Amino acid sequence: MFAVYNVNMNIQEIALKKHKELKGKISISLKDNLESQEKLSIYYTPGVAAVSSYVAKHPNQTKNYTWINNLVAVISDGTAVLGLGNIGPYGALPVMEGKCMLFKHFAGIDAIPIVLNVHSADEIVAVIKAISPSFGGINLEDIAAPVCFEVEKRLKTELKIPVMHDDQHGTAIVTLAGLINATKVVGKNLNNCKIVVIGAGAAGVAVSKLIYKYAKPQIIVIDSTGVIAINRSNLTPEKRILASFNKLVGKNTDPKTLADALIDADIVIGISKAGILTAKDISVMAKDPIIFAMANPTPEILPEIASQAGVAIMATGRSDYPNQVNNALAFPGIFRGALDNGINAITDEHKIQAAIVIAELVEKPTADNIIPSVQDTRLVPSIAAVIR
Amino acid sequence: MFAVYNVNMNIQEIALKKHKELKGKISISLKDNLESQEKLSIYYTPGVAAVSSYVAKHPNQTKNYTWINNLVAVISDGTAVLGLGNIGPYGALPVMEGKCMLFKHFAGIDAIPIVLNVHSADEIVAVIKAISPSFGGINLEDIAAPVCFEVEKRLKTELKIPVMHDDQHGTAIVTLAGLINATKVVGKNLNNCKIVVIGAGAAGVAVSKLIYKYAKPQIIVIDSTGVIAINRSNLTPEKRILASFNKLVGKNTDPKTLADALIDADIVIGISKAGILTAKDISVMAKDPIIFAMANPTPEILPEIASQAGVAIMATGRSDYPNQVNNALAFPGIFRGALDNGINAITDEHKIQAAIVIAELVEKPTADNIIPSVQDTRLVPSIAAVIR
Repeated sequence: MFAVYNVNMNIQEIALKKHKELKGKISISLKDNLESQEKLSIYYTPGVAAVSSYVAKHPNQTKNYTWINNLVAVISDGTAVLGLGNIGPYGALPVMEGKCMLFKHFAGIDAIPIVLNVHSADEIVAVIKAISPSFGGINLEDIAAPVCFEVEKRLKTELKIPVMHDDQHGTAIVTLAGLINATKVVGKNLNNCKIVVIGAGAAGVAVSKLIYKYAKPQIIVIDSTGVIAINRSNLTPEKRILASFNKLVGKNTDPKTLADALIDADIVIGISKAGILTAKDISVMAKDPIIFAMANPTPEILPEIASQAGVAIMATGRSDYPNQVNNALAFPGIFRGALDNGINAITDEHKIQAAIVIAELVEKPTADNIIPSVQDTRLVPSIAAVIR
Repeated sequence: MFAVYNVNMNIQEIALKKHKELKGKISISLKDNLESQEKLSIYYTPGVAAVSSYVAKHPNQTKNYTWINNLVAVISDGTAVLGLGNIGPYGALPVMEGKCMLFKHFAGIDAIPIVLNVHSADEIVAVIKAISPSFGGINLEDIAAPVCFEVEKRLKTELKIPVMHDDQHGTAIVTLAGLINATKVVGKNLNNCKIVVIGAGAAGVAVSKLIYKYAKPQIIVIDSTGVIAINRSNLTPEKRILASFNKLVGKNTDPKTLADALIDADIVIGISKAGILTAKDISVMAKDPIIFAMANPTPEILPEIASQAGVAIMATGRSDYPNQVNNALAFPGIFRGALDNGINAITDEHKIQAAIVIAELVEKPTADNIIPSVQDTRLVPSIAAVIR
């Protein structure tokens, strides 16, 4: 697979080697040269004073005279990085720089990584608000729940540029896109499905909310202490909302455990940890079970095992199995559209439209093809067109 | 001078036109492409997890695996932008983006503009500390005095990356370089000179302090209420230091006004405002007067008038007269050296060494040639070599 390198090197070794060799993955380029005194006078003093005076008087024109029209900050406090957890701002930086590469590669968007060594919602919000005039949009990344919910909610209210926590909404959009096609393939209606979501972190919450918004199915969400039900004590505001999606209808009106919840479930969405689903779990599900097992790098159940247990459609977060649920399908087009169309708030309706567009790019969905390839060049313009 | 454009367009019109046409002056480039699944796996998940785990355990290795080894943030709160004053973060952004161009053009340093909409020293320090793991160095820019002094002092103490307020120290370094050559041309010794500094903002304070550190001459600093003397009430800490440079020796032991102070002065350094020096002011100075009139765009006295009044050597901030005192002579090399040599604190000794190096690049100083050209490619490597 990595023929240009020593075949004995695994992906981790290659990654360490290449990162050290390049000393980072992005750099700054100039849109014009500075090789004459005239150019210096135009782009710096004294000429720039005219531009500064103008935008100081007309701040909403700043985007037409500076790079912020095409600039997104990828911001993390390093508390929930990939599957690595709370590894801090330095550990987060290589991931954020990589995300900036994706922004440029897929959508032509300039993106810069900003990592924070503050971690409370109040501090994160204050810092991001203070630096916000520097950017055209903000992609929040790898901030742990529940802080991420408050940070995003407050920034969306208090800033006039688009803000999106990609771990929540990118995952939710692509999961919904996959489910639209998966239910089509098995001939079910998402509205009538019983769905079990395992994991109530940032992604689990957003996935559950977006699916509910789209189709109002029964959704049972399970966290580390079991089924999230309205009669549980000490529910956070987010979990209280999730509990309301558990409609207590059908055969299992009051499931307490994952095993209870899975009985007759049509769809299981795992955003939790490796190996927590077994073949036996799948055996109690409804006909043609759909499994999205998105724990990385090892899913909740391996596709080989799920297939033997009778799963009809399987998606993971991995590129080496069919049906990869990859945020990179959504966020480039979302921000491309928001920046180009002057959209300051990315709404649930935008996310649903984006999911529908992504699903539609798969012309004839099959069990092994419910999600387009991340390299599909139709993605960004198609999604951007509905963010308006 | 701007032959490629309509000759009727002035520099302001050209600057507005070009900024709008380019929509900003910098962009992000990728150091490698992402055109295969392999590349995505190396630079993003899953490969990047190995890099993140490694630098999380060894934070001081972050610079060897990310772009911060070559990255400076150009940070302003927009309270003292060029000659425009307090025009806020949006107004500041075109200047900061221009400064980032200079960093790349002159020193190959990646620089990104960060503008702040907080303005107290406490807030600015808190925000910059919070985002500091994102950068290899911090160039503070266009922050008004006295807030700039406290911000820089605290950041230098509390951060382990180089921090420099360029309005202070860039100006001070280049002014000192110019004075070293100017005094050589007129055959004076800087130690024995009587110097009048007009203006006690960020640049006036730093210029006075660096010259005093280098040569301990008598320096009389004048602010908007007159001579800064130790017996004046309500002196800020910075102005108390400046007052100590006024040694009360020679004929004028107790000057109260600019006119008093100028009697027998060898050097006048203006960092204040247009036109406040007259031919008559110069007539009372010592033999072979040296004038650095650095108000922009119109100096404290025009070179034509100063020349008629018998000035021996004249420097300004402008590119259309000889002897331009331009910060771009210093900061690229200072940060190039700090980043490459792992220098976390730019000291007075570094600044003095940089000034000496800049002065030495003029092999045979004359009245019209005391400062090298900003396009002199020897500047950055020569300065960087002494920042160690």
